[in-house]
Amino acid sequence: MPAVARDVAMNYAQLIDRLRQRLGPSGILTDLADTDPYCEDWRRLYHGKTPAVLRPANTAEVADAVRLCAEARVPIVPQGGNTSMVGGAAVSDDGSQIILSLSRMNKVRDIDPVDMTMAIEAGVTLKAAQLVAEEANCLLPLSISSEGSAQIGGVLATNAGGNNTVRYGNARDLVLGLEVVLPDGAVWNGLRRLHKDNTGYCLRQLFIGSEGTLGIITAAVLKLFPRPREVEVALCAVASPEAALRLFQAVQQHDPAAIQAFEYMSGAGMALVERFIPDAKPPLSSPAPHYVLLELATPRQGAGLRSALEELLGAAMEQGVVTDAVIAESGPQRTAIWKLREEHSEAQKRAGASVKNDISVPVSRVPELIRRATVECERLVPGIRCVPFGHLGDGNIHFNLVQPEGADAAQFMARDHEIMDAVNAIVRDLDGSFSAEHGIGPLKAYMMPEWRGGAELDLMRRIKAAIDPAGLLNPGKLLP
Amino acid sequence: MPAVARDVAMNYAQLIDRLRQRLGPSGILTDLADTDPYCEDWRRLYHGKTPAVLRPANTAEVADAVRLCAEARVPIVPQGGNTSMVGGAAVSDDGSQIILSLSRMNKVRDIDPVDMTMAIEAGVTLKAAQLVAEEANCLLPLSISSEGSAQIGGVLATNAGGNNTVRYGNARDLVLGLEVVLPDGAVWNGLRRLHKDNTGYCLRQLFIGSEGTLGIITAAVLKLFPRPREVEVALCAVASPEAALRLFQAVQQHDPAAIQAFEYMSGAGMALVERFIPDAKPPLSSPAPHYVLLELATPRQGAGLRSALEELLGAAMEQGVVTDAVIAESGPQRTAIWKLREEHSEAQKRAGASVKNDISVPVSRVPELIRRATVECERLVPGIRCVPFGHLGDGNIHFNLVQPEGADAAQFMARDHEIMDAVNAIVRDLDGSFSAEHGIGPLKAYMMPEWRGGAELDLMRRIKAAIDPAGLLNPGKLLP
Repeated sequence: MPAVARDVAMNYAQLIDRLRQRLGPSGILTDLADTDPYCEDWRRLYHGKTPAVLRPANTAEVADAVRLCAEARVPIVPQGGNTSMVGGAAVSDDGSQIILSLSRMNKVRDIDPVDMTMAIEAGVTLKAAQLVAEEANCLLPLSISSEGSAQIGGVLATNAGGNNTVRYGNARDLVLGLEVVLPDGAVWNGLRRLHKDNTGYCLRQLFIGSEGTLGIITAAVLKLFPRPREVEVALCAVASPEAALRLFQAVQQHDPAAIQAFEYMSGAGMALVERFIPDAKPPLSSPAPHYVLLELATPRQGAGLRSALEELLGAAMEQGVVTDAVIAESGPQRTAIWKLREEHSEAQKRAGASVKNDISVPVSRVPELIRRATVECERLVPGIRCVPFGHLGDGNIHFNLVQPEGADAAQFMARDHEIMDAVNAIVRDLDGSFSAEHGIGPLKAYMMPEWRGGAELDLMRRIKAAIDPAGLLNPGKLLP
Repeated sequence: MPAVARDVAMNYAQLIDRLRQRLGPSGILTDLADTDPYCEDWRRLYHGKTPAVLRPANTAEVADAVRLCAEARVPIVPQGGNTSMVGGAAVSDDGSQIILSLSRMNKVRDIDPVDMTMAIEAGVTLKAAQLVAEEANCLLPLSISSEGSAQIGGVLATNAGGNNTVRYGNARDLVLGLEVVLPDGAVWNGLRRLHKDNTGYCLRQLFIGSEGTLGIITAAVLKLFPRPREVEVALCAVASPEAALRLFQAVQQHDPAAIQAFEYMSGAGMALVERFIPDAKPPLSSPAPHYVLLELATPRQGAGLRSALEELLGAAMEQGVVTDAVIAESGPQRTAIWKLREEHSEAQKRAGASVKNDISVPVSRVPELIRRATVECERLVPGIRCVPFGHLGDGNIHFNLVQPEGADAAQFMARDHEIMDAVNAIVRDLDGSFSAEHGIGPLKAYMMPEWRGGAELDLMRRIKAAIDPAGLLNPGKLLP
C-alpha cells in the first residue's frame, strides 16, 4: 500500500472511531448491509459506496460530526429522504465520502398559528410537516409527489417546486429562517421568524437551492397559510396549448389568489393514462387534443367558488377557449381527476422507454415550446410519442418523450442526449431553463458552463470557495 | 505634497480623464456646484464630497466606468434616488469616493401582460414604474413614501418594504431576474423571467438587499399582478394592541389574499396628526387609544368586498375586538383616511425632536413590544411621547418617540442612543430585528457585530471578500 493510501485509510479508521465516540452506536452505521441502502439514489442512476453513514440526533451532533470530518479533510454527502431526481444525495463509488443523514433530526420545534410559522428540523418528512400544520388548522402548501419520503432539509436544499407553486411560490418563498451547519462545523443560527429584516446579506436564500454544497440545513422556520374552506377541481378540454394559456390568463385576471394549481396535459399523454392505468378515464364526452386540470381554493367564508368557476368556464366555452369541461362534485371525483395527472409518469413508464426534460420558459411561451419541441422531436425520431405535461401556470413543462410503439428501447435511449439537446435548443431560444424544479446534482452539472457560464458560474465558484474552501460538502454536485 | 498623495491625485486626474472619454461630457460631473447635491443624503445625516459623479447611460457604460475605477483602485458609491433612511448612498468626506448615479438608465425595456413581468432599468423611479405597469393594466405592488424619487436599483439594493408587503412581500419577493455590474466591471446577465429555475446558487437574492456592496444592479425583471377591481379602506378604533392583532387574525383567517395593508396607529400619534396637520381628523365619534387602518383589495369580479368587510367589522364589534369603525364611501374618503397614517412622520416632526426605531418582531409579539417599550421609555424619560405606528401585519413597527412637551430638544436628543438601546433590548428579547425595512447603511453598521455577529457576520465578510476583494463597492456600508 503506498504511503498516501495508508495514511488515508488510517485517517478514515481514526475518524470513524472519533465519530462513533461522539455520536454513539445508534449515530453511525458502518456495516455494508446497513450503509448500502443509502448508497443508491431513488432513480437508480447512481450506486456508490461509503465508509460510514452518520445519523446525528441534534444540531450539536451534526456540528461536531462535520468538524471532525473537516479536520480529517473527509468529504460529506448530506442526505435527507434521498428522493432527488438528479442524484443530489448520491455518493461516489470510490468510498471516500461519508454520508450524513438528517433523518433522526425529526422534531417540530414550534408551531405558532398566530404568526403562521413553524420551526421544524431537517429530518421531518414533508408529509409529516403538512400533517402537523393541519392539526394546528394551518396549511403548509408545499406539495411534491415524493412528499412521503422527502425531508424538509432536502426539500429546502433543492428548492423543491410542485403543483402549488403557481400560488405559494417555490420552497424558497416559504422560508423565513434557517439553521445551518457550515463546512467547518460552525453553526449559523438564522432561525428568525420575521417578515421584515433588512440586516445584511440574505444568507438563507443562498443556502436554499445550494444542494448541500455550502452548508447543511438542520432546521427552518416555514411560513404557514390559512387552510382553504372551499376547493374546486375542474378538468377542461381545450383545442390547443394557446387555448390552455388563454384559460390561465382568464382565471388569473379574475381571481389569481385562488389558483391552487393549473396543470396542462396533452391528449397523447392522457391516452397513455387511459390505456395503462386501471380505472383512469377523463370524465368528458370525447377525447381532446389537450387538457387543463384547474384547482381553485380559498379560505374565504362564503366564497361561492363553485358558481364563480361555473361562470368562468361558461364564459370560456362561449369564447371557444374551452371545448368541454367538468367540475368535480365530490372528494372522490376530485381525486379521480387528479389521478389522471398524477399517473402520467407511471403510464409513460408502462408504455416503454422515455426521455425526460424538466424545463421552464416564460409562461407566455409555453404554447410555442410545446409546438416547436413536438415538431422537432417527431422529425428526429419518427413515431416518437411526445407527452408534455405539467405546471403551465409556472411555465414549467415536463417535456417527456416515449419511444415509438414497438421500437427497440435501447436503440431509442441511445439517442437520449440527441433528443434532450434538441429540446434544450428550443428552450434556450425561448429564454428558458434546462432545470426548472429538479435541480442539477451530478446529472446536469456538465451543462452548467454552457447555460450558466461566464460571470454567473464564476460568481458561484467564488462563493463556494469562500464558504467551503476545502470543497468538502457534497462534492461533484451542482458545480462542474 | 507627499509622494503617495501626489500619486493619488494623479490617479484621480487620469481616471477622470479616462472616464470623461468613455462617458462623454453628459456622463460625468466634476464641478462642485454640480456634484454637491449628490453628496448630501435625504435625511441630511451625512455630507461628503466627491471628485466626480458618473452618469452612465447604459449597462456597457456602467461596466466600463466600474472597470476603469477598479483598475485605479478607486472606490465607488452607487446612487439611485438617494432617499435612504440610513445613509446608504452617502459619500465619505475625504473626497476619495466616486459617485455612480444610475439615473440616466431609465428605460422600461419590456413589459409583458401575459407573463405579468416587466424588464426595467435601475434608474426608473418606482412611481414611474408603477405608472407603466398601470398603463398595461397591471399592478406593480411595491409602494413606499419616497416612491417619487426612489429608483428601482436602490429599491432592490435595499430590499425596500412599505405598506403592501403584508400581501405581496418585500422588494426581493417581486424579482425574477437581475442584471448586475460586478466590482471588476464584468456584467452578470441574470435577466430571466422564469418562475421555476433551479440552476445553481440564487445570486439575485444575494445582490438584493446588499446595499450596493457586492455589485451594481443595472436592470431587473419584476413580477406584476392583476389590478384590483374593488378596493375598500376602513379606519377602526380598538381598545388595545392585542385587539388590533386579533382583528388582523380575523381578516387573515377570512381572506388573507385581500389584505392590501394593515396599519397600526397609537392614539397619541393620531392626536399629534389631528393637532398639527390641517384637515386631518379621524372620522369617528370619539378619540380612541389605538387605531387600525385596514385596506382590502381584489381583482375578483363581483367580489362584494364591501359587504364582506361590513360583516367582518360587524362581527369584530360584537366580539368587542373593534369599538368603532368607518368604511370610506369614496376615493376622497379613502385618501383622507390614508392621510391620517401618512402624516404621522410630519406631525411628529412638528411636535419636536424625535428618536426613530424601525424595528420588527414576530407578528404575535407586536402587542407585547408596544406595551413593554412604552413603559420602558416613559420610565427613562418622564413625559416622553411614545407614538408607535406602522405595518402590524408584517410585525414591523416604527417605534418613534417625541420629546416631552416643552422640553429642550438638544437635551432630549443627547439621550437618543440610550433610548434606542432600551427599545432594542426589548426587541432582542422578543426575537426581533433592529432594522426591519430601512437597512443598515453607515448608520447602523456598528450594530452588526452585536446583532449578527459570529458565524453570520463571518459568512457575510467571506462573501464580500470573494466578490469584491479590493473592497471598492460602497465602502463603509452594511458591514462594519
